[in-house]
Amino acid sequence: MYIPKAVEELSMYLNKLPGIGPKTAQRLAYYMLYMPQNELESFGQAISTLKKKTSLCSICHNVTESSVCRVCTDESRDERLILVVEQAIEIVPFEKSGTFKGRYHVLHGVINPLENIGPEEIFLEDLVSRVAAIGGETEVIVATNPTMEGEATAMYIAKRLKEDSPSAKVTRLGMGIPSGAHLEYADEITLGHALSGRRGL
Amino acid sequence: MYIPKAVEELSMYLNKLPGIGPKTAQRLAYYMLYMPQNELESFGQAISTLKKKTSLCSICHNVTESSVCRVCTDESRDERLILVVEQAIEIVPFEKSGTFKGRYHVLHGVINPLENIGPEEIFLEDLVSRVAAIGGETEVIVATNPTMEGEATAMYIAKRLKEDSPSAKVTRLGMGIPSGAHLEYADEITLGHALSGRRGL
Repeated sequence: MYIPKAVEELSMYLNKLPGIGPKTAQRLAYYMLYMPQNELESFGQAISTLKKKTSLCSICHNVTESSVCRVCTDESRDERLILVVEQAIEIVPFEKSGTFKGRYHVLHGVINPLENIGPEEIFLEDLVSRVAAIGGETEVIVATNPTMEGEATAMYIAKRLKEDSPSAKVTRLGMGIPSGAHLEYADEITLGHALSGRRGL
Repeated sequence: MYIPKAVEELSMYLNKLPGIGPKTAQRLAYYMLYMPQNELESFGQAISTLKKKTSLCSICHNVTESSVCRVCTDESRDERLILVVEQAIEIVPFEKSGTFKGRYHVLHGVINPLENIGPEEIFLEDLVSRVAAIGGETEVIVATNPTMEGEATAMYIAKRLKEDSPSAKVTRLGMGIPSGAHLEYADEITLGHALSGRRGL
């Protein structure tokens, strides 16, 4: 098959990204041949310097440009309210919604025995010691995904916090019907959660 | 909204690619934070050197690494049979199928009056003079896409070749039901083409 090496090499890298298969990767690489050279250079630069220009916040492990992130240095945000997410990108929708005034903690993964990821492989003990260091009454909202691994991680966090910081309250994100959804398309598990999580009007 | 600048910049570039919206771009940029640094560097390099490492074949205008592409230098391929495509990537499926033993001509676009692209903006006159230079009996298979612009370009090519190279035969790719498709889902235009293009068994 006849594809220029440079195009093939770029396709190979694009193909490593999630959701981009070999055909899409090839299409994108060919498309990029029509982009101006200066744009390709800044694009390439943005990729190769991505990790050099970012670091993890030493407190919450969110992706940041300095040693401590903007949320952790923001005195107006409640340090006694910590929302725990699996990945840094999951902070974005919370920040966008503007309804959360506490701080974050990024685990950078979930406990997944099948992939040999235990509590030590993610920033979980960091959370336990962070909550213990704050001391007193705190609330930890566990916002891991409602998958098997996410739920197991949430249970483990609750257990560990109960051991080390008995005064900390551990909560889980509310579950039920998403806004704008139609009941007729909701699955039975979601409906079960919606029923058990019903509220007075 | 709180996203590190480096991540946001990379998202912006990814968002310029076809089929990658702002949300996907952001997800990909965050994903790339987990890729090894040496891989990100070669990825970035592959993008910034893409155009430097490739050029257009001086005969067929396909993307290549040398001044003349491999197909055009391959003596075993019939130079009197030229398949015309809109984009270089459209050569890939023909080469993959292995059923085409002629050569190619890449227009790098189609005539599109709405976007101010006339015959001069694409490699169309190049095709006309190429066929004239070969002279004698040639066949030009016009494989532009079956869109309004593709069809108009095909008509225009046929007209120009008839003027300059009356001995050249101009054909269009066969149209009808794609292999593996179900008749029940075929649209009326496709069915019309399939009927008018019927063959004896």
